Amino acid sequence: MTHTSVADLLTGKRQSGEQVTVKGWIRTRRDSKAGISFLAIHDGSCFHPIQAVVPNSLDNYQDEVTRLTTGCSVTVSGTLVESLGEGQAFEIQAEQVDVLGWVENPDSYPMAAKRHSIEYLREYSHLRARTNVIGAVTRIRNCLSQAMHRFFHEQGYYWISTPIITANDCEGAGEMFRVSTLDLANLPRTEQGDVDFSEDFFGKEAFLTVSGQLNVETYACALSKVYTFGPTFRAEKSNTSRHLAEFWMVEPEIAFADLDETAAFAEKMLKYVFNAVLSERRDDMEFFAQRIQKDAITRLENFINKDFAQVDYTDAINILIQSGRQFEYPVEWGIDMSSEHERYLAEEHFKSPVVVKNYPKDIKAFYMRMNDDGKTVAAMDVLAPGIGEIIGGSQREERLDRLDARLSEMNLNPEDYSWYRDLRRYGTVPHSGFGLGFDRLVTYVTGMQNIRDVIPFPRAPRLADY
Amino acid sequence: MTHTSVADLLTGKRQSGEQVTVKGWIRTRRDSKAGISFLAIHDGSCFHPIQAVVPNSLDNYQDEVTRLTTGCSVTVSGTLVESLGEGQAFEIQAEQVDVLGWVENPDSYPMAAKRHSIEYLREYSHLRARTNVIGAVTRIRNCLSQAMHRFFHEQGYYWISTPIITANDCEGAGEMFRVSTLDLANLPRTEQGDVDFSEDFFGKEAFLTVSGQLNVETYACALSKVYTFGPTFRAEKSNTSRHLAEFWMVEPEIAFADLDETAAFAEKMLKYVFNAVLSERRDDMEFFAQRIQKDAITRLENFINKDFAQVDYTDAINILIQSGRQFEYPVEWGIDMSSEHERYLAEEHFKSPVVVKNYPKDIKAFYMRMNDDGKTVAAMDVLAPGIGEIIGGSQREERLDRLDARLSEMNLNPEDYSWYRDLRRYGTVPHSGFGLGFDRLVTYVTGMQNIRDVIPFPRAPRLADY
Repeated sequence: MTHTSVADLLTGKRQSGEQVTVKGWIRTRRDSKAGISFLAIHDGSCFHPIQAVVPNSLDNYQDEVTRLTTGCSVTVSGTLVESLGEGQAFEIQAEQVDVLGWVENPDSYPMAAKRHSIEYLREYSHLRARTNVIGAVTRIRNCLSQAMHRFFHEQGYYWISTPIITANDCEGAGEMFRVSTLDLANLPRTEQGDVDFSEDFFGKEAFLTVSGQLNVETYACALSKVYTFGPTFRAEKSNTSRHLAEFWMVEPEIAFADLDETAAFAEKMLKYVFNAVLSERRDDMEFFAQRIQKDAITRLENFINKDFAQVDYTDAINILIQSGRQFEYPVEWGIDMSSEHERYLAEEHFKSPVVVKNYPKDIKAFYMRMNDDGKTVAAMDVLAPGIGEIIGGSQREERLDRLDARLSEMNLNPEDYSWYRDLRRYGTVPHSGFGLGFDRLVTYVTGMQNIRDVIPFPRAPRLADY
Repeated sequence: MTHTSVADLLTGKRQSGEQVTVKGWIRTRRDSKAGISFLAIHDGSCFHPIQAVVPNSLDNYQDEVTRLTTGCSVTVSGTLVESLGEGQAFEIQAEQVDVLGWVENPDSYPMAAKRHSIEYLREYSHLRARTNVIGAVTRIRNCLSQAMHRFFHEQGYYWISTPIITANDCEGAGEMFRVSTLDLANLPRTEQGDVDFSEDFFGKEAFLTVSGQLNVETYACALSKVYTFGPTFRAEKSNTSRHLAEFWMVEPEIAFADLDETAAFAEKMLKYVFNAVLSERRDDMEFFAQRIQKDAITRLENFINKDFAQVDYTDAINILIQSGRQFEYPVEWGIDMSSEHERYLAEEHFKSPVVVKNYPKDIKAFYMRMNDDGKTVAAMDVLAPGIGEIIGGSQREERLDRLDARLSEMNLNPEDYSWYRDLRRYGTVPHSGFGLGFDRLVTYVTGMQNIRDVIPFPRAPRLADY
């Protein structure tokens, strides 16, 4: 392409004095009395726009340049020069300004240059990426995703695309969405009068996945180090700022790794991607620190520079009991900790990310490895100050007899898990893994309060616009 | 972790003479008359296993080592030494062999060490990653995915997670799957007796996406260079070796780019990822060249070294007519080319990848940019020898009046597209993009004949196992 991105211009990829062309959208226009206009041109390639200084000697100065408003698209050509004003290193002395697209009725342009509430922006999901805040979120989200793939690649992991449509609810991790092509006006019936899913597209009832874990274990037991990174779904009617019906998950699965090794790997992974954000997206992070959450940067720096604390669930419960704190939900051994407990541990007691390990078996899934005490399983949660649980994982039960005992204890039918059991019948190995909610990670890094603002088109109860 | 991957051992990341530990699965065991066993140990980190030479002086030699069969999992520690045999650079002089998991009834182990048909392997999707062929496919798939993300990142593109669940079938690109939580035994009804989707999870009828394009255009019109990489769905009952109901798509969308620039970008992208495969996964590619498709490597090399041919649709039709070839489907201006036509062009006429441009408007979607002739639109397909269409794209109609004319011509309701039209009302820009079927790309690179063998758990009519 014959034009240069604003990011490349501002970071000195072109030399002062060079002829350059930039294409983008007007953020603001300011006219001086001396007959010069200053255009802030943004193309989304980085946080900042570049300034174009437009003299009134241009042919279309009166007719077009002075009519430019926020959101108009332009091509500007001219000379790149060092900027004398503060803030930016370079600006463009414009020699030509071509208008590509006007804004119809600028007064009613939904993204006009004023402060909009985040709730207002949510009503315009198709335009909100043009704002500072959602643009910055998008670049951070991309940076985290790129860094995540890069990290796994460098560590010798293979990305596995586990299925989105699944016919088993093995994990029982949550309410599921049904996927079907049956004609609802004309449902096929069995002789007993039930819906006949053998007539459906997949020949049986099918759902959207809640996790790729069980599937990806089959690949860990062949390629050793693997991960998923894809969308997962929960049909829970929770209308909160922390839940989405459709969200992206990262799920590494590591053969030959025990719980402690996996916890150490999770720590390494989080630090790696936070480092990437701080070094690659300083511009956006400075915006978040300025406007969204004062300690956005220092919080990540602290996260990177500290070792994670480690604590057994049993000890964590004692810490909570001995804290003297009145919690809304009472604390006793055996409870599934709620957010207030998790945040107390991370924010007030340890004042650092903390890995809580070895949870009571009765609050955990069937596939987690039984500890020798017969009461707890090798599960872990990583809790972080400011957000609570960010990662949940476990060592998987690799011993067939224990796995079968758990299935039976939980009234699950071993036949439904025959392929999962095969992994334990044929060359079983210790293995562990965890799940990270990618969207929640983006809220953590940016300090955004509502998870609906860190994904382009959020899905939630009664919300599937666009 | 305290062990080293086979890939690191074979590529000299450790020195000859070092003490090393490897963990993996037995591929084969061979016993010499001199009382030594040779174990081929595979961990999926690369194509080849490493050989461990086990002396009968080990305590568990008789009881365990000589009972090891294909698929058993082991930990082997010993000294890394340069291999005297041909083929491999290094092997391990074993000092300890620990068995982690036996194979239950080795005679009936589904992945026993013999040649299995690819159809047979498909019956064991949870175990087939342990074979040479599916292991190699998996590493190639990962390599292509990593290279794809890296390429876009280096080119200044941002990854956008467009929604999987959607309430509009804007593109009309194909049959869709319904996503619902309604109780089929008890469907809510409107007063008119229709199914009342206002009671459904999303408050309206919802589907699985067929493409992220329309959604991602909103981000291209804010961040300039963006792409999607995620699953898409077609509920078509086509039971072929080229179609999946659930498949992964890569969809770049480029503001300020016309059709030719986008075609050039597609060429650059394909060459980049093929280069990555050839340089990073030579081991797996050699296997494909040996066992699956003789020219697997030379084909990619040719692809990389040749410029893509460029031809207008109208000229391509003339070439087909003048070829004198009897095609199954007759050729005339206006047809949607079928696979035989596409392959003739790429394989016999141009003998190289070819970009066909400017298709008749009547066989293309509403959003493609009308050419000045009023008959064709700025659409393109990239056809490759050996596979036919691999990429389809277009310049998008950025002019509101033309877009509206097309919507009306195709009896589409402009209100359903109000957000899409907004992009043309507010600072519209020329922009273009394309879609690449990622799974089809993997079949192309590996030479695998059936697309069901390049994704871990394929989904197709009556197929949603695991």
